[in-house]
Amino acid sequence: MKVEIITTGDEIMSGVTLDTNFYWVADKLVSLGFDLGFHTSVGDDEEAIIEAFRTAQRRAEAVIVSGGLGPTTDDLTAEAASRFFGVPLELNDEALEMMKRRFDERGYKFLEVNRKQAYVPKGSKILKNFWGTAPGFQYEGEGVVFFFLPGVPKEFKVMIEEYVVPELELRGIGRKKYKKKLIKTFGLRESEVAERLQGIERDGAEIGYRAHFPEIHLRISAYGDTENEAERLLSGLLEDIISRLGECVFSTEGETLEEIVGKLLSQKRLTLALAESCTGGLVAHRVTNVPGSSNYFERGVVSYSNKSKTEILGVPKELIESFGAVSSQVVEAMAVGVRRLANTDLSVSISGIAGPDGGTPEKPVGTVFIGISHRYKATVSRRFQFKGTREEIKLITSEVAFDLIRKFVLNDV
Amino acid sequence: MKVEIITTGDEIMSGVTLDTNFYWVADKLVSLGFDLGFHTSVGDDEEAIIEAFRTAQRRAEAVIVSGGLGPTTDDLTAEAASRFFGVPLELNDEALEMMKRRFDERGYKFLEVNRKQAYVPKGSKILKNFWGTAPGFQYEGEGVVFFFLPGVPKEFKVMIEEYVVPELELRGIGRKKYKKKLIKTFGLRESEVAERLQGIERDGAEIGYRAHFPEIHLRISAYGDTENEAERLLSGLLEDIISRLGECVFSTEGETLEEIVGKLLSQKRLTLALAESCTGGLVAHRVTNVPGSSNYFERGVVSYSNKSKTEILGVPKELIESFGAVSSQVVEAMAVGVRRLANTDLSVSISGIAGPDGGTPEKPVGTVFIGISHRYKATVSRRFQFKGTREEIKLITSEVAFDLIRKFVLNDV
Repeated sequence: MKVEIITTGDEIMSGVTLDTNFYWVADKLVSLGFDLGFHTSVGDDEEAIIEAFRTAQRRAEAVIVSGGLGPTTDDLTAEAASRFFGVPLELNDEALEMMKRRFDERGYKFLEVNRKQAYVPKGSKILKNFWGTAPGFQYEGEGVVFFFLPGVPKEFKVMIEEYVVPELELRGIGRKKYKKKLIKTFGLRESEVAERLQGIERDGAEIGYRAHFPEIHLRISAYGDTENEAERLLSGLLEDIISRLGECVFSTEGETLEEIVGKLLSQKRLTLALAESCTGGLVAHRVTNVPGSSNYFERGVVSYSNKSKTEILGVPKELIESFGAVSSQVVEAMAVGVRRLANTDLSVSISGIAGPDGGTPEKPVGTVFIGISHRYKATVSRRFQFKGTREEIKLITSEVAFDLIRKFVLNDV
Repeated sequence: MKVEIITTGDEIMSGVTLDTNFYWVADKLVSLGFDLGFHTSVGDDEEAIIEAFRTAQRRAEAVIVSGGLGPTTDDLTAEAASRFFGVPLELNDEALEMMKRRFDERGYKFLEVNRKQAYVPKGSKILKNFWGTAPGFQYEGEGVVFFFLPGVPKEFKVMIEEYVVPELELRGIGRKKYKKKLIKTFGLRESEVAERLQGIERDGAEIGYRAHFPEIHLRISAYGDTENEAERLLSGLLEDIISRLGECVFSTEGETLEEIVGKLLSQKRLTLALAESCTGGLVAHRVTNVPGSSNYFERGVVSYSNKSKTEILGVPKELIESFGAVSSQVVEAMAVGVRRLANTDLSVSISGIAGPDGGTPEKPVGTVFIGISHRYKATVSRRFQFKGTREEIKLITSEVAFDLIRKFVLNDV
């Protein structure tokens, strides 16, 4: 069954409010196997709202309308619906009663402006709102069912679950079973991923690409007549993708890269220390976003000044003078220094130029060295050249640092 | 002139990606005084995309289409446009040349799948993409101008500014002058802000509220027949708002809180050091997001383990044993320790329980101590009780830390 969504409101159409209702309901309905057709946003303009109803009625079997049910002059949805369906607005006693009770419970005064909210197109079914004050309603026009819901996210969401989904399920015919998975990759550009996956598509399964800087995410989905069929199709596709992308795939269950790294460190019982310069604490911040990270993360040093590199990490002053703070020599000394200081198994160090200033011809903005040191192995470092804004360079540097830890732990320990 | 927006992509229609492009462009165009008609979202389905084009062409004078210009099999926009306008796809040499040069510059290999991106409907005007690889294009059908832009937010935005706005202005008629300002506040809840601002509205000026956790942002705008009139209206409103909200307003020019703090530290020539426990480097990360922060930020220590608090910061072991790591005594010792170590004017220290585990009846999850130490003043600390997820507690803690520095520097130095 084709479902359409209409979001109303000047605050949406003028970019003041981000429309998170649609984002939420799209995920909800698609996950349940409904076929979502179009989503239209429209301002608080009665003619425009009616035009949106007309277009949706022509294309869909069910239409969900959010917003415009409040007491103010820019709440026009019921009026527009009445004109569109060609039936008068009528005071609904059930809705009025319900509203008055809600106002009482909350200790609000029932104002004359609120009475307007109990008027709905004649013949509507009231959708009681136990979570707020504006009642919703349902009306069927030319075989298409319209649901009118308040735009307040909390109320919208619960009324979708309580009224809309059961009604759609009741009317739904031959909904396919649907399975999906999110695959996260790092290390290939979108077109490189696409090239490696050329010809991998199969009937009943889809791949969606999404750049999520600096990662590329793939959303794969499969439809089948039974859950099993959808699942089988999905896991076959997943296996193929992993065999073609190899180690670039770091997550298939929605985990972040820092969660994956945390799991690996926990599994191998390795502890970690960090010495960051140009990322300025971002790597430590991401590490500590993971609950339980205190089990493997011992400490971090944001050695922003040269003095702090020498004083805390014991990087010889002469090394900084000879090679510069942004060098393999210094970054390796930072890694060894923080690992010894923290007495951890592993350490990662970062030094670079995040910009916009500080670049030189030999070491332009975006030059970054990352070092990795292990208790029983030779300390190593790599040089990278990144592009982007200051925040992008910080972000991709942190990503590469996590990816280096991931591969180090996966392959070398 | 009526403008419509069409967003394409399964990732939008399935609720995987929040459509921030529309949010941004709506704000942009409305700010410039354009009349935005409808916004339609549609999945990666050629027939549905064509239907969206048809509906928009019927209603609008200009249509902006985002997404679907990439190299992968789910990128269908050019194909759909070609069928809709009834003209074949044609390899555009200019676009191909441009793409190859971009790939060269970036050191990417030009793949066979990328060649597809240089095919556009015959008769299109190419919109060169200097910020990414997929070219955009412009086509006029039955007097309606269509702009086809890549969906990557960075590229979409700059191409709107470079190509779409000038073209719309060229064609636009009778726009009102419009001025706006973003006011950022911290420390009051949305309803408290709304209560303080009751009755402040005036003709021709608007206030939009937006919760931007943990800040409340106010977007104020004013319309007038002349720039001056709009400006006068706007600055009157701004003054009133500031007089009612006082110190809670920290920015009126779009600056972040960390930028404001950075400016204050630079002005007063104060240097800063940080000792973070539960925020895990987030404060240092935010400090170092500001270009030039190396002028005032000396170093940070992410003293996650108790051992690191003792070893680096010199917090007496007995203090941790007697009062716990999350205590005013320890957080003050951390502040003094890191300030002396770094030899800075100012230091801030943080210790708390970000959860989800680690809470106790006396110190539940969300208990946070923040210390602040100055070279010539008594070291102080405050206890806070926050609510939320681990990441929310980290974020609000960092926000309060910045706000404490801001007020300390504003009032006490």
